[in-house]
Amino acid sequence: MGEGAKTWPTAGMVVIGNEVLSGKVADTNSPFLCRELNFLGIELREIVTIPDDFERIGAIVREYSERFTWVFTSGGIGPTHDDITVPAIAAGFGCQALRNPEVEAALRRHYGERLTEEHLNMALVPEGAELITMPGPGFAQIQFHNIFILPGVPQLFEFRFNSLKKQLEGQPVVLREFFLRADEGVIAGSLREVAERFPEVLIGSYPDFFKSDYSVKITLEARAQETVAAAVAELQAKLEALPITIGRVN
Amino acid sequence: MGEGAKTWPTAGMVVIGNEVLSGKVADTNSPFLCRELNFLGIELREIVTIPDDFERIGAIVREYSERFTWVFTSGGIGPTHDDITVPAIAAGFGCQALRNPEVEAALRRHYGERLTEEHLNMALVPEGAELITMPGPGFAQIQFHNIFILPGVPQLFEFRFNSLKKQLEGQPVVLREFFLRADEGVIAGSLREVAERFPEVLIGSYPDFFKSDYSVKITLEARAQETVAAAVAELQAKLEALPITIGRVN
Repeated sequence: MGEGAKTWPTAGMVVIGNEVLSGKVADTNSPFLCRELNFLGIELREIVTIPDDFERIGAIVREYSERFTWVFTSGGIGPTHDDITVPAIAAGFGCQALRNPEVEAALRRHYGERLTEEHLNMALVPEGAELITMPGPGFAQIQFHNIFILPGVPQLFEFRFNSLKKQLEGQPVVLREFFLRADEGVIAGSLREVAERFPEVLIGSYPDFFKSDYSVKITLEARAQETVAAAVAELQAKLEALPITIGRVN
Repeated sequence: MGEGAKTWPTAGMVVIGNEVLSGKVADTNSPFLCRELNFLGIELREIVTIPDDFERIGAIVREYSERFTWVFTSGGIGPTHDDITVPAIAAGFGCQALRNPEVEAALRRHYGERLTEEHLNMALVPEGAELITMPGPGFAQIQFHNIFILPGVPQLFEFRFNSLKKQLEGQPVVLREFFLRADEGVIAGSLREVAERFPEVLIGSYPDFFKSDYSVKITLEARAQETVAAAVAELQAKLEALPITIGRVN
């Protein structure tokens, strides 16, 4: 990846939940976020999946908050004993999780007589956090420093993300693809040469042994359309000189 | 999670690849590993997904090697410029990646005249690593300290894992489930009480707002059958006293 990439906004994601690590629930939130952030031109640099572990949640969210422009967490914000994300993040920053009176009032209105002490856990907010007003289900979207604390339920995660993405900034990535029938070893030299000449273009090579129409996909990505186009032209010329079959070029 | 859990073997997984973080490829290797390790009784404690970044690969694999019983890496071991996993891991341990003569010979036999310099990248092995003989495709399964370096292509990842899992040890987890029509806030007190009385039982609560037959699934897990059974009995008694509907209990 070229030096230029470093000036783009970056992101880290923290997926919280024993249920993911034990294989009981498939995490669909991180593939969703990967696609969305790429489309927004935000470089997702790291995803970590951790258990419902108070200390680990606090430490890693703090670390990511320092390393990346934005941090997204998924999971652990309901009313049960394993929902510890908010107090754990607060502790990671050496501050308290306090009941927010506004959220508490919304919870009391919603649950009425059915309200339990545990429902009120959902009113906890790290000291100093902002509440973002959101349409639709849920009581509060918490932004704490550069961290968005999102629910683990996929439908809610996606809904919330779609509502807040307006405030994120970036420039979309341009993606071009070659589909080849070729051995990776044969094309590797050409790929390396183009990668060296265009350091700001990210070049990937992905073999697939089970496709009938191609055996390796080459991807070229960068933020500037003309840079990608120049790299594509140069790579195409090099590939045409090799004993391989070039299929689709997107 | 109870203290007892700490004596079980643990694992960490490192998923390497820009293509996953940019959303172009869905990572199916980590959900596969989650399910398999849980079945084997190995506690997967953390999964991290990182770019093709030499320094980061080396640093995180070394860190995981110290924190967990086993480490599994996925991706970055082919012949192209973005396949840097082996030299990066070697560098993380302050040692060299050297061409293994046995693997080099196998590559030369396989590719014959078509062999390129880049193919020989696949013969790189961290100094001091062991090669595990494997049936089926691929040239060498590398074990370096407690680290298994696996390919990213899902069919190969799964095939390799299935071949090496005999040498991993653990005791399977017993899982029991309740399917309820209930608000989490109403049952949270009972869950907390049972979690406190049975610290070695991992209790999870997973709402699903889109199922017709239940609204929340409760899971109880531990290594000892009788402990889980006792926790299930106690929870069932508590839930029956609440104004909720208990559906299936598995």
